[in-house]
Amino acid sequence: MNIRITGSGSYIPENIITNFDFGKHQFMNEDGSAYSQPNNIIAEKFKDITGIEERRYSDNNMVTSDIAFIAAQKAIEDAKIDPETLDYIIFAHNFGDVKNGTIQTDLVPSLAARVKHNLRIKNPKCVAYDILFGCPGWIEGVIQAQAYIKAGMAKKCLVIGAETLSRVVDIHDRDSMIYSDGAGATVIEATTEEGGILGHATASFTYDEAYYLFFGNSFNKDLDPDVRYIKMHGRKIYEFALNNVPKAMKECLDESGYAITDVKKILIHQANEKMDEAIIQRFYKLFKETPPKDVMPMSIHKFGNSSVATIPTLYDILMKGDLVNHELNPGDLVIFASVGAGMNINAIVYKI
Amino acid sequence: MNIRITGSGSYIPENIITNFDFGKHQFMNEDGSAYSQPNNIIAEKFKDITGIEERRYSDNNMVTSDIAFIAAQKAIEDAKIDPETLDYIIFAHNFGDVKNGTIQTDLVPSLAARVKHNLRIKNPKCVAYDILFGCPGWIEGVIQAQAYIKAGMAKKCLVIGAETLSRVVDIHDRDSMIYSDGAGATVIEATTEEGGILGHATASFTYDEAYYLFFGNSFNKDLDPDVRYIKMHGRKIYEFALNNVPKAMKECLDESGYAITDVKKILIHQANEKMDEAIIQRFYKLFKETPPKDVMPMSIHKFGNSSVATIPTLYDILMKGDLVNHELNPGDLVIFASVGAGMNINAIVYKI
Repeated sequence: MNIRITGSGSYIPENIITNFDFGKHQFMNEDGSAYSQPNNIIAEKFKDITGIEERRYSDNNMVTSDIAFIAAQKAIEDAKIDPETLDYIIFAHNFGDVKNGTIQTDLVPSLAARVKHNLRIKNPKCVAYDILFGCPGWIEGVIQAQAYIKAGMAKKCLVIGAETLSRVVDIHDRDSMIYSDGAGATVIEATTEEGGILGHATASFTYDEAYYLFFGNSFNKDLDPDVRYIKMHGRKIYEFALNNVPKAMKECLDESGYAITDVKKILIHQANEKMDEAIIQRFYKLFKETPPKDVMPMSIHKFGNSSVATIPTLYDILMKGDLVNHELNPGDLVIFASVGAGMNINAIVYKI
Repeated sequence: MNIRITGSGSYIPENIITNFDFGKHQFMNEDGSAYSQPNNIIAEKFKDITGIEERRYSDNNMVTSDIAFIAAQKAIEDAKIDPETLDYIIFAHNFGDVKNGTIQTDLVPSLAARVKHNLRIKNPKCVAYDILFGCPGWIEGVIQAQAYIKAGMAKKCLVIGAETLSRVVDIHDRDSMIYSDGAGATVIEATTEEGGILGHATASFTYDEAYYLFFGNSFNKDLDPDVRYIKMHGRKIYEFALNNVPKAMKECLDESGYAITDVKKILIHQANEKMDEAIIQRFYKLFKETPPKDVMPMSIHKFGNSSVATIPTLYDILMKGDLVNHELNPGDLVIFASVGAGMNINAIVYKI
């Protein structure tokens, strides 16, 4: 028995926000002092480091579970399965449903229950739950689906990653330019077909790292201290990711029994292009190799960091042939890898 | 190989809130009209139906992950394990960390990451994540731990259920009197000892039932419509639970291969004593039996409904011999069963 992704779907919100749309934002330093550079310079520098030119924001009348539902529908259609045959719906997110213009997170019922409701699935044996695991949540959901299949508890699982980070950004923090909205979904099945998941690795670093990403106050000290936003210690995360993500990827590849030269593509979580390039360099260096050209398909330039949605969305776009200069074909070996709040890191080696 | 609970711990907040402490609350009907009866009559009626005399609220300076940490420490001590040997920390909750006097849910990092941080566990291979599954979250966490153990992905898991519902209640809604705060934790291990988990069942009913429990506005129409609270359609839940919980329990017991006459205790989620009594009556009726006296240990009178914390807390108290007229002994067959937001139902048959 192998465990494969048999269908995928994604939802890319239509509202394009360019770096220059932040032009009127009053950016501040952490201590509340005004940021010294003009916004057009900030926008250029930001693009040079992160690679982000644009990001997408959901429509005001939609919440995370709404965009997830659209991606889920597409994944089910793509997998050509009867949704009533799903054993699990696993929904990874980090902020729940936050209505536009409000500050509360709505988690009851779970977002998985909402998606199942909207899919009109009647079968009560389809277990719907949410996981919170930072940006690596979608990969971890796939690892959980694999566990249920291996344990004989499931044959088909829908794993969703969706987030509307636009609802939790501090507009006075330049880091707000990183975040984006999106939804990706995949159907994971036990199958006799070749390929599928060949190895996985997960790690949670909490001793010193737990609060590298956190929910904190605005840099604007005049705002209500009881209102908090997504915040990060960017430099610490950068160093942490460089030190630990390549190791997790290597461990995972070693477990799969394949060689570095077998790897066709690496689908990595995207928060910062320079960081991802450095991670890939270090990963290949562990094998005394250099990364081949085009090994790392990127969607960050146009989509920003949509957290749990980044990797399943990228996978879906690649599988549909919608990313220029990149394609995935049967038999290709790929690595999924992610890092995010927790701080969590995980990776999967997968044969298309 | 068997899968057993090898240690448990709980934290019962010290602040006792009696029914009469609600005396000054201005209760309203759903339409915002004043509730006609005086509060002392409401308190008496409430006690007659739900069995609740008191509930516990956390200290103002604590959040859900803080009380969970205390319960987790106790469970690890009870199991006599080195916390560095844990493969998973699975934390079930539904509202995240909500600071007293604020309305935002804080989920980043996950509450499991916070507990792991506070336990000072260094081992990055200990994977820490949260699940959202309504009140049945702790049981579902145990089922997930079982899956990882069966799939060869884990040997020892810490499963926590903790909630501070006092932070999300509408003081104008009589249902606010049901909710309570608490934390329970258990260590689940693969072992060669006899007993442990003998069967499990889970169901998610979302077609008509998804919003029986939801996040909604105050009954007081003068309050900010952007602020929401835990809300329920009590009558619908009552009927739903009576129709479906006994069936799930029977399915689970049948899977275990044991007979109804083997069951020593049923540890059921407690939101309403009358409802639980009716569920147990119907469960035994499915086997053409009547419930034996004292089969259902109750903690609701003093602890109210602490959501995911109710069952692990009750288990811990029973195992420590702290519940009058009830005890658990090696070899006893027990059923854990829960129902809650989603709407989700689950059950485990377990031999002490």
